[in-house]
This record gives sequence, structure tokens and C-alpha cells, in this order.
Amino acid sequence: MTESRSTHITWHAGEVSRADREKILGQRGATIWLTGLSGSGKSTIAVATEKRLLEKGRASYVLDGDNIRHGLNRNLGFSPEDRTENIRRIGEVAKLFTDAGILVLTSFISPYRADRDAVRALMENGDFVEVHVAASLETCERRDVKGLYAKARAGEIPEFTGISAPYEKPLEPELEIDTNERSVDECVDQVMQYLEERGYLSA
Amino acid sequence: MTESRSTHITWHAGEVSRADREKILGQRGATIWLTGLSGSGKSTIAVATEKRLLEKGRASYVLDGDNIRHGLNRNLGFSPEDRTENIRRIGEVAKLFTDAGILVLTSFISPYRADRDAVRALMENGDFVEVHVAASLETCERRDVKGLYAKARAGEIPEFTGISAPYEKPLEPELEIDTNERSVDECVDQVMQYLEERGYLSA
Repeated sequence: MTESRSTHITWHAGEVSRADREKILGQRGATIWLTGLSGSGKSTIAVATEKRLLEKGRASYVLDGDNIRHGLNRNLGFSPEDRTENIRRIGEVAKLFTDAGILVLTSFISPYRADRDAVRALMENGDFVEVHVAASLETCERRDVKGLYAKARAGEIPEFTGISAPYEKPLEPELEIDTNERSVDECVDQVMQYLEERGYLSA
Repeated sequence: MTESRSTHITWHAGEVSRADREKILGQRGATIWLTGLSGSGKSTIAVATEKRLLEKGRASYVLDGDNIRHGLNRNLGFSPEDRTENIRRIGEVAKLFTDAGILVLTSFISPYRADRDAVRALMENGDFVEVHVAASLETCERRDVKGLYAKARAGEIPEFTGISAPYEKPLEPELEIDTNERSVDECVDQVMQYLEERGYLSA
């Protein structure tokens, strides 16, 4: 009895809270969810913001197609169910990073309002920062860095967002960034200002 | 043409490497994968190690049943396929944390060698630290904090690892921690010593 009780006591460790992690990192964890058309500038803004945060000594990470589609979500296709599950898993992973105290940026078209709202619903108030990376379809098609719009117009890519599949704009995003006429630096400034003003960069 | 080119140049951001993130955090990212019987002490060691790391100003996070089964893996059951998918997803998430420069600890029984080896195969050399949390079945049953062994012996829990389902010990784990006769602090010392000696605590 004594031995059993002492074993029990010995084998109890103190808790670690999210606040503890945030204090060490000197920031508040959050999910900065970038949504917008292909070519709107999501990835560029995500990486440039991560860079800016790192230069300020803040812990940050970007979830994007490169590290998600070939990893966690490699067993998902492009059916409606799989697209929803794709966004759900990304949301759950972003939530874990947020709980870890990290400023995580996600860069996915995420065209459906219901899917984005489902991710928001997973999180605490203030943990989900929805950023509409807004460029006109015209701007995106003109950029067409990967030649995807040309292929979509030629009918070679079915259900391409903005061409043959809908993009549902956020109704009340925390931030809307118009990338039509602005430099990357100006867009990053806008994100950083939001994070600074709302207290994400201190803990 | 000029406009298009300038737009392209403006919209290219510098890369951020894992080394950049690790430099900011002053540590190397890694997955410290704890495996062992229910009651062997995985969770306790995971949380206590996270605490020790945080006290040293290191960024750390624990993935366990609480934050995974009710989140990312809430749509998985306990069939053999789902158990394998459960571990695969955890491995992919741990890989993302590792790439983010975090010292992530995972606390799952993970009884099958093939599943653990599949996670190891996802990662770069040195990124996966397999830790066998070794307590005898006798010790685990004696602790039986959650009363699970009693239920398993009574046949109320089917396929319970160690009782009615196999546990495949790691053949060449990076660390083996015998928790039968030692305090939590001593076990954490062993993990910390390994991390220190192998250079995970600096970058």
C-alpha cells in the first residue's frame, strides 16, 4: 500500500500550460489562415511574414501544399469529402501549433466558407486570424506563375477555383489584404501591424 | 512585359530554412518518440521533459492521446488499418514540428515495430529519437492508475496491449529508460543528457 502510493506520487509530473510555453517564446500562439485564389499571393506573404517574424526572434512556421499534401494528407484526393477532410486536418494541425505557442501561417486556397468556419470553430477566440488575400481574378491570371490558369481555361484542369469552381470570399475576415497594387513588404507590414496591435508578439 | 516582370520579381520572397528557425530557437528540432506499455510512464516522462526543456528556455510540445485522439484523429477507430493510420498521422505531425525546430515528444503505446519504423523512415537521420519506456508488465499492472489492466484482465477491454495484444519492443531504440525502480526526475535526466550530448539543445 505504502509502496503503491509512493509510486503513484513519484510518478506524477507537474502540468505545463500553454501560457508557460508562450512566456518562454515571448509571443502568443495563433493560426494566421491565409485564403484566396491561386496566384493571389498567399504563399509569398506566408513565407515573407515567417521571415519577418524570425528576424524579430519569434517562432513561426508555414503549413502549405508542399509540406501537407506530400505528408499528412498524401492519402487524400480531390473529391468534395477529401477536400473538406484536407482542410479539417490542416486546421487540427494548426491548432496544435497554436497550442504550442507558435505563430503558424497556413497557405491554402480553402475556397469554401463552411470549411474555414469549421476550422475557426475548433479554436479559442483570438486564436484564428482569417486573412483574405484578395487579388482580382484578372491579377491572378496575369501573374499565372505556374501556368495553371492557362491550363484551366483550356479545360485541362477540372474544377479550378475562380474559373470552373467557386471561391467563397470571407464575410468577416480579421484582415483583408489587397495584393493587386502592393508590394510584398507592404502586405507583410499589414499582417505584422495586426499581430503587434493585438498583442500576439508578446506574452 | 516590363510590368509583368516587375510584378513577378516583387512577388518573390526569400526562403526560410529549418536552420534559420533552429538558430532563432537555439536548438535542433527533433521527434522524441516514447513507446511502451500503458502505465510504463510515457506521459509522465513526456510532460516532465517538456517542463525541464521550457525551464531551460527551449521550445517543446507533447503530442498525446488527449490532443490527438479528440482532434486530428477523431475520425479514426481501432481497427488495424485505423491504428496504423493513427500512428502515421502522428508521425507526419511530429515531422512538421521537427521541421519547425521544435523538440516534440510523442506519448503513444505504438506497439507495432512496423508502424514506428514507418515514422522513422519519414524523417532525416537524427530527427527521430526512439525511446523505449520500459517497465515490466508487473510494474504497469501494479500502478494501473486508470484501472485499465483490471478491466482488460476481466475481458472488458479487447485487444489490450500486453494482455491480449502484443507489444513489440524496439530492437535498437536510441534510448531505453527503465522506469521500474527510478524516479521521474532520474528518467528525465536520462533524456536530457541524451539531448545535450547529441547537440539538440544548441544550434
